Amino acid sequence: MSADTGETPVVESARRKRTRDRLIDAAYDVFAEHGIAAATVEQITEQAGFTRGAFYSNFESKEELFFALADRENQVRFDRLEAGLTAYLPERGQITTDQISGIVRDFLGLQPDNRSWCLMQSEFQMLALRDPEVGKTYISGENRAMSMLGARLDELVAMVGLRFTMDSRELSQVLGAIYSDGITRVMLAGSSNPGPDTIDEVSDTIARIVQAFTEPIPA
Amino acid sequence: MSADTGETPVVESARRKRTRDRLIDAAYDVFAEHGIAAATVEQITEQAGFTRGAFYSNFESKEELFFALADRENQVRFDRLEAGLTAYLPERGQITTDQISGIVRDFLGLQPDNRSWCLMQSEFQMLALRDPEVGKTYISGENRAMSMLGARLDELVAMVGLRFTMDSRELSQVLGAIYSDGITRVMLAGSSNPGPDTIDEVSDTIARIVQAFTEPIPA
Repeated sequence: MSADTGETPVVESARRKRTRDRLIDAAYDVFAEHGIAAATVEQITEQAGFTRGAFYSNFESKEELFFALADRENQVRFDRLEAGLTAYLPERGQITTDQISGIVRDFLGLQPDNRSWCLMQSEFQMLALRDPEVGKTYISGENRAMSMLGARLDELVAMVGLRFTMDSRELSQVLGAIYSDGITRVMLAGSSNPGPDTIDEVSDTIARIVQAFTEPIPA
Repeated sequence: MSADTGETPVVESARRKRTRDRLIDAAYDVFAEHGIAAATVEQITEQAGFTRGAFYSNFESKEELFFALADRENQVRFDRLEAGLTAYLPERGQITTDQISGIVRDFLGLQPDNRSWCLMQSEFQMLALRDPEVGKTYISGENRAMSMLGARLDELVAMVGLRFTMDSRELSQVLGAIYSDGITRVMLAGSSNPGPDTIDEVSDTIARIVQAFTEPIPA
């Protein structure tokens, strides 16, 4: 296609990325307003100011667009976690439960978009449960994310002379489950600006688990 | 109402329980087939062979019926867990990770209804996230269940001279989160008869967490 317009692949690729980003932004708004099942490709392209053709030259389906949205949202949260971890990195071999709680509490400090995102994830998970093909893509995406997180956590704790006593992928899955469960309970309790108590509770639980499965690397 | 029919309160109450049970059975089938949001009170009463009047003299709404269904399903799982725990109770102070894995593996052995129930729970959680009133009832029900489970686990491990080093309600919440996450991943992976590997993985994780937060009661 770049041959037709005479554009270089670099320009084409930057433009393509902008188009994709605008479609993902639009999808976020449309999914949040109407729900994923009810949202149509037309609503998304209209919101983004594109044609259906632009949509289908970038995404095969609404589901594929959701996966792109999820990748972006996960990356934002991953970067934020990593920044928090790096900022708090303690002295060698001295990470305490309180320090871990602090990192998690900061990370859990719910952004304004979290309620929408939490709803979207719940709905998408349900759609994935009903559709085996979507389910398989969903679960391999999650497995990839957990392996990435686990590997990064391994590197980070090794920097301060620590290591996990549970496989880091498994530990990431555990922490992810407690985190999702905690966020969901905060949301269910009926507040999009949850009080400090609930967040502190989830943070302390995560900190206790991390502490229980961390040990100094023997000299 | 029992004055009109001349029945004793005991008979009335037994009949009332049968009516409620039949409505709950019918709701399970209708929710499983159509989803909770799409299901109507008419579909449920028709399936149960009752009138709308019978429905509304027992339940205020579809949501209240779902809570009654959830109570019953949770009780079944709770009883099954307790039976498993009692059967496996080890020698005093000697519970091992392998024994805990065994109990959890048996408990996780998915019944035929688990896929439907997992879908229903996901959908209901989403409805609860969207409706603050339903959300509050949902979360207090879950908190009650977790406190009950925690208290029972305390008693059970005390019988073999052990105690938890984490508050048992908090521990129950953690185990519940890992369990739900595990079941959901098994379902997402696309099988209603998941292979032994996945169940073993979840069981081992839960066992490791329980082991890490259990200690002998000092003499």
